[in-house]
Amino acid sequence: MSLVVVGSMAFDAIETPFGKSDRIIGGAGTYIAWCASNFTPVKQISVVGGDFPQSELDELANRKVSLEGVQIKKDEKTFFWSGRYHMDMNTRDTLDTQLNVLENFQPVVPDSYQDCEFLMLGNLVPAVQRSVIEQLKTRPKLIVMDTMNFWMEIAMDELKKTISMVDVLMVNDSEARQLSGDFSLVRAAATIMKMGPKYLIIKKGEHGALLFYEDKVFFAPALPLEDVFDPTGAGDTFAGGFIGHIARTKDISFENMKTAIIVGSAMASFCVEKFGTARLREINKADISARLDEFVQLVNFDINLV
Amino acid sequence: MSLVVVGSMAFDAIETPFGKSDRIIGGAGTYIAWCASNFTPVKQISVVGGDFPQSELDELANRKVSLEGVQIKKDEKTFFWSGRYHMDMNTRDTLDTQLNVLENFQPVVPDSYQDCEFLMLGNLVPAVQRSVIEQLKTRPKLIVMDTMNFWMEIAMDELKKTISMVDVLMVNDSEARQLSGDFSLVRAAATIMKMGPKYLIIKKGEHGALLFYEDKVFFAPALPLEDVFDPTGAGDTFAGGFIGHIARTKDISFENMKTAIIVGSAMASFCVEKFGTARLREINKADISARLDEFVQLVNFDINLV
Repeated sequence: MSLVVVGSMAFDAIETPFGKSDRIIGGAGTYIAWCASNFTPVKQISVVGGDFPQSELDELANRKVSLEGVQIKKDEKTFFWSGRYHMDMNTRDTLDTQLNVLENFQPVVPDSYQDCEFLMLGNLVPAVQRSVIEQLKTRPKLIVMDTMNFWMEIAMDELKKTISMVDVLMVNDSEARQLSGDFSLVRAAATIMKMGPKYLIIKKGEHGALLFYEDKVFFAPALPLEDVFDPTGAGDTFAGGFIGHIARTKDISFENMKTAIIVGSAMASFCVEKFGTARLREINKADISARLDEFVQLVNFDINLV
Repeated sequence: MSLVVVGSMAFDAIETPFGKSDRIIGGAGTYIAWCASNFTPVKQISVVGGDFPQSELDELANRKVSLEGVQIKKDEKTFFWSGRYHMDMNTRDTLDTQLNVLENFQPVVPDSYQDCEFLMLGNLVPAVQRSVIEQLKTRPKLIVMDTMNFWMEIAMDELKKTISMVDVLMVNDSEARQLSGDFSLVRAAATIMKMGPKYLIIKKGEHGALLFYEDKVFFAPALPLEDVFDPTGAGDTFAGGFIGHIARTKDISFENMKTAIIVGSAMASFCVEKFGTARLREINKADISARLDEFVQLVNFDINLV
């Protein structure tokens, strides 16, 4: 039984108030794989061009990320995204998007991935996400989907079709408002859960994340940091920590999802400390454990005093 | 030994996307008194005009709010504020401010208030706040101060003088940035704590509140609500819940301040449910207890699963 991850592997060029990166490794699938592989082996589905470095693929393979589902199109170019963040780091401008290999990406699920127990659909074309669900002969125990406003604008019907097939949906606060048509996040959550997902996670960046389930809600804070150096990939890393913890513990209860959100938040807090995936490449189990302790301290209060 | 509260008692006229109020009872001191009196008796210091309703004073007296320190200037008018909120409820426009009795307010601390153990300085002219500290013959065990950007703009030196004399300062996130000159809230907190206060609370409205102390930080979420009907007084109510819990338990440890922030957040979540002080006038101990349970559920996760 295994965790299957679908998502882009890409080149990014990033500008923040703290500096500017060259063309560096990025993509939702990349961040998810680097993060989730701290907790469990990963079976990756993605596509790259001939320009994608073999060394990056080797490093992922060394972390028990299976690459059998990653197509390498030798004569094409890898997906490229360039963006600029402003001081508040909550908004960004896209400077350039070159779809390249993503334009006609048709994912193929290898036979060896058919034991998929947990499926993480990283942000990608909704029809591509759905194609992976449909290729799996046995429905996974838990399907988690990340998406973004871009698909709401150009492919809302396709998006809703995919959303109707998943167990957990992740969006940010403005996307929850856009998808539901309601400003109140509590009412937005109720509306979105009627579209199919039993669980909804609303990411609020530096303001933490909310998990909705039936009439219950759980809140995980973001760690207050001196500087958010580069927010790129924080949402993907959050997703990787969430599904990584779930896949490691094989427990899909609401109680365990709360812990998984804390793990996702802790992993995202590393991600933003350096450009791109740099920080995720450095951390080890001891770092993760210490950061999780910080989260416990951050929210833990003595309920007996109330 | 007692809790002394300083703050304005006023008339407000409020517009929100949900409606418009007539001239209703408002003022930082009013909200603090209505809130804190759920936990402990209050000795109030304020000033009103001859137009302030006796029935309001009677209601407060019935809640064990001592009014000996409330000056009634029969021939003058009560402070009036009018404002308008927009959809996001985090920003507001001031439409009208009439200082009236506040213009030359000189607080007088009655002898019966000299047993003050806990002092809550609601948002007010910094020199007036300081005058109360200076009139107390024995320094209180804990002095908590709320303030706002307005004083940073017109009386920064006066403000800093008062800040240097208190134990706990409360500001919102943009005020913390303005006061420290640093965008990062973590660095802003370090800078502000060097100005005097040992503890700093940064209020983030619907995004919760942070408590800083030495190198420690604690986070309390805001309760996700279907609608924030009127945010007026939410910060004052938060302050009232915080100091009310501290005064009731007589425990000024960091651990108990964490609980006090949760109590403040719970009380503020009631405040925003109706216009002005309406909701605070309705709630009883059972409502408060149930709301506190909701906060425990909101942030409680099983650390053993991590």
